[in-house]
Amino acid sequence: MTPVRTAAVVGLGLVGGSLARDLAARGVRVLGHDRDPASVEAALRSGAVHAALGPGLEGAEEAELVVAAVPVTAAAAVLAELAPRLRAARLVTDVGSTKASVCAAAEALGLGGRFVGSHPLAGSHLSGWEASRTGLFAGARVFLSPTAGTSGSALALAREVWWTVGALPETVDAADHDRRLALTSHLPHLASAALALALADPGVRRAELGPGGRDATRLAGSSPEMWTAISLDNAAALADAVGTLRDRLDALHGALRRGDEAALHATFAAARGWWRDGEPQP
Amino acid sequence: MTPVRTAAVVGLGLVGGSLARDLAARGVRVLGHDRDPASVEAALRSGAVHAALGPGLEGAEEAELVVAAVPVTAAAAVLAELAPRLRAARLVTDVGSTKASVCAAAEALGLGGRFVGSHPLAGSHLSGWEASRTGLFAGARVFLSPTAGTSGSALALAREVWWTVGALPETVDAADHDRRLALTSHLPHLASAALALALADPGVRRAELGPGGRDATRLAGSSPEMWTAISLDNAAALADAVGTLRDRLDALHGALRRGDEAALHATFAAARGWWRDGEPQP
Repeated sequence: MTPVRTAAVVGLGLVGGSLARDLAARGVRVLGHDRDPASVEAALRSGAVHAALGPGLEGAEEAELVVAAVPVTAAAAVLAELAPRLRAARLVTDVGSTKASVCAAAEALGLGGRFVGSHPLAGSHLSGWEASRTGLFAGARVFLSPTAGTSGSALALAREVWWTVGALPETVDAADHDRRLALTSHLPHLASAALALALADPGVRRAELGPGGRDATRLAGSSPEMWTAISLDNAAALADAVGTLRDRLDALHGALRRGDEAALHATFAAARGWWRDGEPQP
Repeated sequence: MTPVRTAAVVGLGLVGGSLARDLAARGVRVLGHDRDPASVEAALRSGAVHAALGPGLEGAEEAELVVAAVPVTAAAAVLAELAPRLRAARLVTDVGSTKASVCAAAEALGLGGRFVGSHPLAGSHLSGWEASRTGLFAGARVFLSPTAGTSGSALALAREVWWTVGALPETVDAADHDRRLALTSHLPHLASAALALALADPGVRRAELGPGGRDATRLAGSSPEMWTAISLDNAAALADAVGTLRDRLDALHGALRRGDEAALHATFAAARGWWRDGEPQP
């Protein structure tokens, strides 16, 4: 049993494309759209998308589930384009890494009752339709942020849709989500990008790195468009987090200049203490 | 055929312990020492070490190969303790992540002719005898730094010893090595530790991170003693590298505060460009 018969997915990148694949594999009829016609054609050929939406998203009227799987700063415009076409929709959602702005946009468009923001923790440094795959969400946490007016049935359907594709939904307030994700996800991305450039400046190539350096810079390979959008959308919380990291590095810089053994040891010991305390339970 | 019959390994941590295991597995008689008597006992029980050196490293006289596998700032003192006992030694080496200071110490002790600094790229965020294992060096690069006076036979033996345990030796000038490693290895470690503390400050636990954040903070679990020693030993080059990273983060902080889309996109695009250019060849 699938929770819906017809779904519309706008944006066939890593997350939207993978969701289309998983829904289609479970018997849902999937209507798809992407800015890039080649992605739509590839999705149609793969069978993950059964029919293309029109250039103005014509055809979305049929869908009970509508997913805006576009960068966070593009989500409001996609929702505005979808709004007059939401005839059969029982749930409208997104998949972005920030939740406050998209919930506010849905409310402003009068979609609050049927909207639940979704954020599956299933991103990657890879992006685009070619990176999409079935099973991407298996075992992944998905944060669900309702609006002030989300109906109980829309929230229940959101939980059911994500369960259906193997994910583990958790409901969280949108503003709390964004403050937390600035730290747990967005800061590591920006740190990895900054580290990549601090290595690029003096001419170090990635192939010269050992396993540790490669892990520490892996997130630098992420989509610039997506991370520009996330950074702008969560700029205030993220600026605080980046400032904290900059101050930590400035303190290390001073300790190195002074040859301050005690300060260096205290820093590395505190970092390892945090690492060990946070060891996930097996 | 093993390149030596008897080896002495001082320091039975991750690298020293693994080297003892690999040499013993190839029929070399291994004499071992560690500050921690429990590590010596465990190494004796495992069969990786055949006999313990005395508390003053008595017994090292028999070894043709002598390895100081201790943190870089402790290597000079261990070499000084070993120097009067190097009767049979044809090669004295270390395994530290910096090479200039240990080469200078060996020369000052009159060991330059028999000394070659070694730096196997086989570290880990794990440490101690319990983390040691056979096969640690299989396929790993090992930088070899001779002194000004290293004999051809000592350098040839160093290459042969590392080949024997499956590693890939490359000869590199000690000062060049240290400047390069400040970037390719030491900076990622310090960046990871600083990121861990920037997350710890506002109360984020490691178990809350997704796969990306866990990779970016993995090196924060490394040995504080080892990284304090490396940082002090390579402080000048590392301070420059940390300063560059701090400046990159300060620029990101400013771009976030201003909501500067162009600057953010340029940063992420440059980081991904570096990441893609450096893709190791398959």
